[in-house]
Amino acid sequence: MQNEDYMVIFQPSGRRGSVPKGVSIVEAARLLGVGIETLCGGRTVCGKCIVRIEAGRFEKFGITTGLDHVSPWQEAEGKFINAEQKAAGFRLGCQARVFGDLLVYVPEASRACKQVISKAARDIKIDLNPAVRHYHLKLDPPVIEEPLGDFERVGRDLEKKYGLKDLTIDLFALRQLPRVLRQGDWQVTVSVWNQKEIICVRPGTVKRSYGFAIDVGTTTVAAYLCDLNSGHVVDTVSMMNPQCKYGEDVMSRITYHRNNPGGLQRMRDDIIAGLNQLIDRALAVTHPPKPAKTILDASAPVEADATGNSQEEYLCLQHDDIHDLAIVFNTVMHHIFLEIDPAALGRSPFPPAIHHSLNIKARDLGININPAAYVFVLPNEAGFVGADNVGVLLAEQPHKGDLNQLIIDIGTNGELVLGNRHKLISSSCATGPALEGAQLSCGMRAAPGAIERIAIDSETKEVDYKVIGRQAWRKFSGPEDMHVRGICGSGVLDLLAELFRTGIIDKGGAFNRKTLNGHPRLRKNPSTGMAEFVLAWSAESAIENDIVITQKDIRQMQLAKGALYAGCKLMIKRLGLKQVDLVKIAGAFGTHIDRVKALIAGLFPDCRIENIQSVGNAAGDGCRAALLNVAKREEADWYARNVEYIELTTEPNFQREFVAAMSLPHMYDDFPHLEGIVPADILRQ
Amino acid sequence: MQNEDYMVIFQPSGRRGSVPKGVSIVEAARLLGVGIETLCGGRTVCGKCIVRIEAGRFEKFGITTGLDHVSPWQEAEGKFINAEQKAAGFRLGCQARVFGDLLVYVPEASRACKQVISKAARDIKIDLNPAVRHYHLKLDPPVIEEPLGDFERVGRDLEKKYGLKDLTIDLFALRQLPRVLRQGDWQVTVSVWNQKEIICVRPGTVKRSYGFAIDVGTTTVAAYLCDLNSGHVVDTVSMMNPQCKYGEDVMSRITYHRNNPGGLQRMRDDIIAGLNQLIDRALAVTHPPKPAKTILDASAPVEADATGNSQEEYLCLQHDDIHDLAIVFNTVMHHIFLEIDPAALGRSPFPPAIHHSLNIKARDLGININPAAYVFVLPNEAGFVGADNVGVLLAEQPHKGDLNQLIIDIGTNGELVLGNRHKLISSSCATGPALEGAQLSCGMRAAPGAIERIAIDSETKEVDYKVIGRQAWRKFSGPEDMHVRGICGSGVLDLLAELFRTGIIDKGGAFNRKTLNGHPRLRKNPSTGMAEFVLAWSAESAIENDIVITQKDIRQMQLAKGALYAGCKLMIKRLGLKQVDLVKIAGAFGTHIDRVKALIAGLFPDCRIENIQSVGNAAGDGCRAALLNVAKREEADWYARNVEYIELTTEPNFQREFVAAMSLPHMYDDFPHLEGIVPADILRQ
Repeated sequence: MQNEDYMVIFQPSGRRGSVPKGVSIVEAARLLGVGIETLCGGRTVCGKCIVRIEAGRFEKFGITTGLDHVSPWQEAEGKFINAEQKAAGFRLGCQARVFGDLLVYVPEASRACKQVISKAARDIKIDLNPAVRHYHLKLDPPVIEEPLGDFERVGRDLEKKYGLKDLTIDLFALRQLPRVLRQGDWQVTVSVWNQKEIICVRPGTVKRSYGFAIDVGTTTVAAYLCDLNSGHVVDTVSMMNPQCKYGEDVMSRITYHRNNPGGLQRMRDDIIAGLNQLIDRALAVTHPPKPAKTILDASAPVEADATGNSQEEYLCLQHDDIHDLAIVFNTVMHHIFLEIDPAALGRSPFPPAIHHSLNIKARDLGININPAAYVFVLPNEAGFVGADNVGVLLAEQPHKGDLNQLIIDIGTNGELVLGNRHKLISSSCATGPALEGAQLSCGMRAAPGAIERIAIDSETKEVDYKVIGRQAWRKFSGPEDMHVRGICGSGVLDLLAELFRTGIIDKGGAFNRKTLNGHPRLRKNPSTGMAEFVLAWSAESAIENDIVITQKDIRQMQLAKGALYAGCKLMIKRLGLKQVDLVKIAGAFGTHIDRVKALIAGLFPDCRIENIQSVGNAAGDGCRAALLNVAKREEADWYARNVEYIELTTEPNFQREFVAAMSLPHMYDDFPHLEGIVPADILRQ
Repeated sequence: MQNEDYMVIFQPSGRRGSVPKGVSIVEAARLLGVGIETLCGGRTVCGKCIVRIEAGRFEKFGITTGLDHVSPWQEAEGKFINAEQKAAGFRLGCQARVFGDLLVYVPEASRACKQVISKAARDIKIDLNPAVRHYHLKLDPPVIEEPLGDFERVGRDLEKKYGLKDLTIDLFALRQLPRVLRQGDWQVTVSVWNQKEIICVRPGTVKRSYGFAIDVGTTTVAAYLCDLNSGHVVDTVSMMNPQCKYGEDVMSRITYHRNNPGGLQRMRDDIIAGLNQLIDRALAVTHPPKPAKTILDASAPVEADATGNSQEEYLCLQHDDIHDLAIVFNTVMHHIFLEIDPAALGRSPFPPAIHHSLNIKARDLGININPAAYVFVLPNEAGFVGADNVGVLLAEQPHKGDLNQLIIDIGTNGELVLGNRHKLISSSCATGPALEGAQLSCGMRAAPGAIERIAIDSETKEVDYKVIGRQAWRKFSGPEDMHVRGICGSGVLDLLAELFRTGIIDKGGAFNRKTLNGHPRLRKNPSTGMAEFVLAWSAESAIENDIVITQKDIRQMQLAKGALYAGCKLMIKRLGLKQVDLVKIAGAFGTHIDRVKALIAGLFPDCRIENIQSVGNAAGDGCRAALLNVAKREEADWYARNVEYIELTTEPNFQREFVAAMSLPHMYDDFPHLEGIVPADILRQ
């Protein structure tokens, strides 16, 4: 009964270390800090975590290893690894477990790369009405005739001068009070939260007060450091959600929690540590004397833009200067963040543990800002429509106008809101991660080497494309310059639209063999026998293979867009509308989307192209609104209570609508606004 | 620049270990867990910490040591150590610092012994109206048509069934909610604090709910475990305040904080750890199936008395079952407990950081009960009249009657309250620790070997006495059976009264040489030349010395009682009264006091003896009232606001009154109620 550890070495990174017997190779990689793609969280669905087990004696590392040092082959692995590959030592990293010393090679295609994150704050109008306000006092010092206590002395003047009554004081602020009063010679700045509680006292007259608005996405996290006196965004920082290693989508993370004791705690610790890193980074960055700026990515070179902020040139912020924090996420991320069991969110009827917004002391969450500060957690609408959607609504305010808006927030999950000031309904649809590039044979995250734009020539059917990390398109580059690794979200929608527009696939999504007769890009995969279309030849790629889109991939995309379209349509019907006045696409995905191609692909019902808007990271913008304006917090709870959630999958017509919506752009619906954009014969097949 | 450590060995305990260079021997003892008396906290006032530095090579321990291994002799040590003793290696442990390996002998007189603590709960009437109430719910489970969140589902039924509105929920309770609801098959017990916040959810129908009332004294700590459903005291546990090692009185602790970086934190950590030990002990003790009982001392054999509690015979309590806690202390202990700088309490005008009561999450304080529970900290009246005095008032309720009550709480500090329902005033007087036995040449804490009762024969002037730990008085014992070590608080007052009543000292407190001419017990101390009276001969003692009371000791007692008497008198005058209707003596000291002797000694102005009451640990009783009845919490804040604090030392007549009150029983005042008790010629000298 001894706890055995084995040496595992990962190549090409060379990272090595001991891991406990029996952990999976994916887990071992996690323990040793090696990035392996794991989109499905070990459910053998994505096949992204293929690794090669090396055999033999490696003098250089002092280990002997072999294929028998891992757990036996699982049948499920056969879905992704053929017999030849199997013989060469390929395994699924989530299935193969460590039972001896190992040398593991992680192929390029399986390596998790740093994703490009783009969640810049938009310039939206927010009335400034922060929860934490600051009051300057000049007190009479205590004398023997009137030895009133410090807190009561402060409270008396706050009432006399500012009309604040019955305040309480946080323990941490109380601890500062005697020192601060005397240090400031009885002149102090008192920070009061929601006109209820003193959370900070500082000597003298101080104005400095900052807050964070944080948007925790399934995949990415963005934090906006805001000046609570001006409302300005001082800095934007972002990172990958460190929980990605437990699975790419929310269901995988629920699964991880279910299958791993302590898994919830681990995921929660990871997101808290991640947020603290983000906060540290934002505070460190603002130390040097330079103006406010936006950082899109931590690894990118820091470029200062000249937004000014001249009043306080030398902005040296401490964690204690952060007096407020507002945070949004989907409901599963919300539960994990708060360490609430998310299991019920994974089973019908998917009730959340709580809808209401929450005010929680930062110290209770382990968030490293002023310990007496509160974290405002925005409310959830439903199990699959979370606080992030409330954020979108706070930013877009569909309840304030007469126009019927359809707001689509496409992340790993699709969230829909439709309505106007009379009524608002919401729903969610399981688009799956296909629209984000996952679960496609060549899909990947938005990282360098990912195809993000595609244009196909109507005549020659030749493919031109652009990859992340390179300005020049394919046709202006040599093949060896492209280093293509796969296709990411924004490229996927382009691809689907272009395949259809150029007639490569028909309305039903099938490859049009007649049109492409003998074209070298359309071929049968020699091992699977499935039809596939080559997007980039191996000479252009970094993974020694052609980058292809298979018939099955196209089906995946159709399923995703069909779910979204069907959802939109059922909601339009539910409100008794003929059409929507405005379509807003939110989410990082939305900022990169080509609205024409989105319409061609049939992501949503027909609409005037000029009425399709991309609203960027509206969830983050709404979160910022809640940070800066307490009235928005009440509005948030109003949304969570009053937006009616529609469960689409139980709608009687859902299945029929879904099937019809899988066609391009739709089986029956007309798309008058695509006239002249898509050839008439193709549009009306 | 290296950090040197030296080996220090204490005898006779044999405890040994490395300590950093430069620490005092008292500090070294603390680090190694050796108890040395340190009443004054290192201010060279008490002289209790005398130790002997051994010199030579000690093969047994492998060290060589010597008098030069400690820091040089300080002049102040000469107050307590004469030349001969100095030559023998005696030093004050608080002054001598470690500069080499040491063997230190701790004489019997300097050893800190476990004190006898007696703070049993009185049987007082308290209306049951706890802050935490429990509600049983039977909920409809969520269905697809109504997937309302867990918290909102609970909230809806709490409003419908019990009329509770706008409740919030603690994060820790929210974390339990999804699991508990499903575990209990949608039947739950919800615990709500102050009709505001859900702090606990449990599956099924549960009633169990307990709380602690805790009285933190400067010297002793008592905790009452109470059943919040019945109000019964389930258990009483007590301990020495672990902060005693930093000094016996509150001023010494402020000094310790001022002189030691991190000292406040250390004292706070000690009291929190101590309270957690107490809580653990109370919970552990109630595990076996036995009735409720009172434990006076942890080391004493546990005696169960038959108070019943038959409903729940097998009472197995967990920390999570503790839903509430109320706590009292003097203002300095209050500040240290909350980690608030107490320095301002040590300087005129002595303002506290806060008067108001506080509700603080147990987890914020590190108190190991249900983490979502609140600790109710009772309010302070003034810098020297703390929450413990508010507790006394809650128990005695002087504001509810017409009788003018004088309530004297004698601890290390004396606190006085006087008045009735028309007006209440309070004050504090620096009695010093003399009445508790400290600062007397043979004074000690109430530990085994301490004289607690004294009777002197009027004719022979022979002394009879009783010591703690032995039932039989001196006259029924052999001298070698007594093992006297000193005199403690209750003995001190007896002594002063008896010395006066028998004419050994005169009204002014001076030894009456005429009366005692040639009596062997009255003598001159050979080294100091000061007159002293022998209470017990060395044959009866455990410290190889006669136990004596010196002229200076008597002066100390007179100063203490004079301060108290003057305080009472000035307060009586302030309220325009002729006399008080009722004298109540509170505090552990009060429970042991002989009220006749207290009157003879002139602790307070004349009063009918039957109107002098001992009210035991009224502070703890009041704290218990606040635990069990929320209305008492409001009453507590009312007291803190409305009892007028009088600073006695600035009263114009204080000095004159003080001097007059040092006489026995008073210089001018008549004591008609002592007629027939004290011989007329003595009473009216």
